[in-house]
Amino acid sequence: MSRPKNDTFLRALLRQPTEYTPVWLMRQAGRYLPEYCETRKRAGSFLQLCKSPAMACEVTLQPLARYDLDAAILFSDILTVPDAMGLGLYFAEGEGPRFERPLRDEWEIRNLSVPDPHAELQYVMDAVSEIRRALDGSVPLIGFSGSPWTLACYMVEGGASDDYRKIKTLAYARPELMHHILDVTARAVIAYLNAQIEAGAQAVMVFDSWGGVLSEAAYREFSLAYLEKVIAGLTRAREGQPVPSIVFTKGGGLWLESIAAIGCDAVGLDWTFDIGRARTLVGDRVALQGNLDPAILFAPPEVVAQEARRVLDAYGPGPGHVFNLGHGISQFTPPDHVAVLVDTVHAHSRSQRA
Amino acid sequence: MSRPKNDTFLRALLRQPTEYTPVWLMRQAGRYLPEYCETRKRAGSFLQLCKSPAMACEVTLQPLARYDLDAAILFSDILTVPDAMGLGLYFAEGEGPRFERPLRDEWEIRNLSVPDPHAELQYVMDAVSEIRRALDGSVPLIGFSGSPWTLACYMVEGGASDDYRKIKTLAYARPELMHHILDVTARAVIAYLNAQIEAGAQAVMVFDSWGGVLSEAAYREFSLAYLEKVIAGLTRAREGQPVPSIVFTKGGGLWLESIAAIGCDAVGLDWTFDIGRARTLVGDRVALQGNLDPAILFAPPEVVAQEARRVLDAYGPGPGHVFNLGHGISQFTPPDHVAVLVDTVHAHSRSQRA
Repeated sequence: MSRPKNDTFLRALLRQPTEYTPVWLMRQAGRYLPEYCETRKRAGSFLQLCKSPAMACEVTLQPLARYDLDAAILFSDILTVPDAMGLGLYFAEGEGPRFERPLRDEWEIRNLSVPDPHAELQYVMDAVSEIRRALDGSVPLIGFSGSPWTLACYMVEGGASDDYRKIKTLAYARPELMHHILDVTARAVIAYLNAQIEAGAQAVMVFDSWGGVLSEAAYREFSLAYLEKVIAGLTRAREGQPVPSIVFTKGGGLWLESIAAIGCDAVGLDWTFDIGRARTLVGDRVALQGNLDPAILFAPPEVVAQEARRVLDAYGPGPGHVFNLGHGISQFTPPDHVAVLVDTVHAHSRSQRA
Repeated sequence: MSRPKNDTFLRALLRQPTEYTPVWLMRQAGRYLPEYCETRKRAGSFLQLCKSPAMACEVTLQPLARYDLDAAILFSDILTVPDAMGLGLYFAEGEGPRFERPLRDEWEIRNLSVPDPHAELQYVMDAVSEIRRALDGSVPLIGFSGSPWTLACYMVEGGASDDYRKIKTLAYARPELMHHILDVTARAVIAYLNAQIEAGAQAVMVFDSWGGVLSEAAYREFSLAYLEKVIAGLTRAREGQPVPSIVFTKGGGLWLESIAAIGCDAVGLDWTFDIGRARTLVGDRVALQGNLDPAILFAPPEVVAQEARRVLDAYGPGPGHVFNLGHGISQFTPPDHVAVLVDTVHAHSRSQRA
């Protein structure tokens, strides 16, 4: 198989020259799109939508039909892996994800094992294959997973948390148990991402949504070390092409240089970091992905365009930038503003290179 | 009036030599203490507790009776100022603070005015005077306020927020209105803090709890500029002694050097920043306050002691460190662990200097 027709995104991740700055948006297939809400209604629930390869494929393609995006991302949830480990993922109405059987006792932790990506998680691989077929070589497909630390947070807390009391108590009081969870989870993430690559994912992203709640020392010990293991375990090339990797620790700006040193091709930035300063810090070691505040999409179109140009100007022309938001797009985003954003990124970055 | 008998905290803020590292804890008078829960029950509600100078004084002193703390902090809420502006502060059971009349329309914003600290806010000044009398020159009393940006967040959102959609929409779509709110609020904060100093506060702290949700450019424009105004407007000395100021932007680590340059005496750090690296960055420009992860207090006492020593060792001996948590103490903290923390900070920092 050859490269996709539009491989701008892949080249930017590898810091190769591109004619313009590629753009995609975290959570680009989501509730801000009426067509997504339609499909989700038909699916019955968010989880059924994730578990149906046909419907997951359908919603993955929806934003690409509307906007000139440079990549598609697998529609799925970051918690599929612990669900496959038997924790029982569910979504309570109006709340975030929860587990029926969070890790509470030592024996539960000792009993954890790596799920077979081709058994409990086959539905994800089927979705990847189906999306690749449907994309028909137009733009690349991104696979993804939660990071070991972030998955462990949900597995121990049982859901989202304000204070991470349970997992931090475990990490500080029983570090050997914490490391056991992280070790099993890291191996599960590697197997899961490699199966996605095997099924057709052309780049992979690891979402470390909760790494930023740790102290620097704890981040290195409980999150970064396992991100490094995951990156080291990934299939580096497939179909004769490199498979670039992106690591995104939300709230991890203070540790940018350390993240850039773990072997990933690109680092995702949230919106708190000036991307020009970030580029100076990482030099040519990695590409950077980001980092417009998603809240800017609530502002009038001319402000959206102005702030998008500001991010592009801060990075400057030249290779290694994938434009994105600094966090997932909000369900309250006016869809028209996204068109303005995507078109501005393309037009302004072309003019930067002219 | 003379200095308090124990002025270690004030000297550390001014980067003068101290025999040991002083320590106090954000939210040290709080729900983790059974005696606090008793008083609060008696008060009827959190707000009645804040508004009764006698009871506010009582709970301010409670942690000092238990622990060898080096400072007292006025017991109050950060939202007293917008409450005095007429927004109607209330606390729904089990939720955070809310306003009955959040800022929704332009005319409401244009009508905002600076409340007289000796009218609607006299109860705070009475509490400060009463606490000073009760402390009887033992340790210094810290006054405080929310930052203009943080107060504005609550005033516009109407309460805590997940995405700051309303205030960010206002800031990006109608920046002149946003600046009007911030300008009035900054003047209100200056009048409020100066009245606290007049009433007896010996140091002041500005809590910028939500500055960290902004991009770097927006932080400079909407938060830092007003923090600088507030600091510039503060009474610098009282009773023949300097009144040091502390600025704390939670999640503001990326902007530490800029915060250190606005004229405050000390910068508060949350727990995500390695305090040794922070000290290298700020040099001798400011003192640093922080920064143990409050979650460490859930761990066994020997881990609490070990992690407290780690923070002290990272900062190193020498002047300019006030030990604190990186955020308010959790209501789930075992009170005995706080004693271990305070005693470890004193003992280890004495041995560092020996």
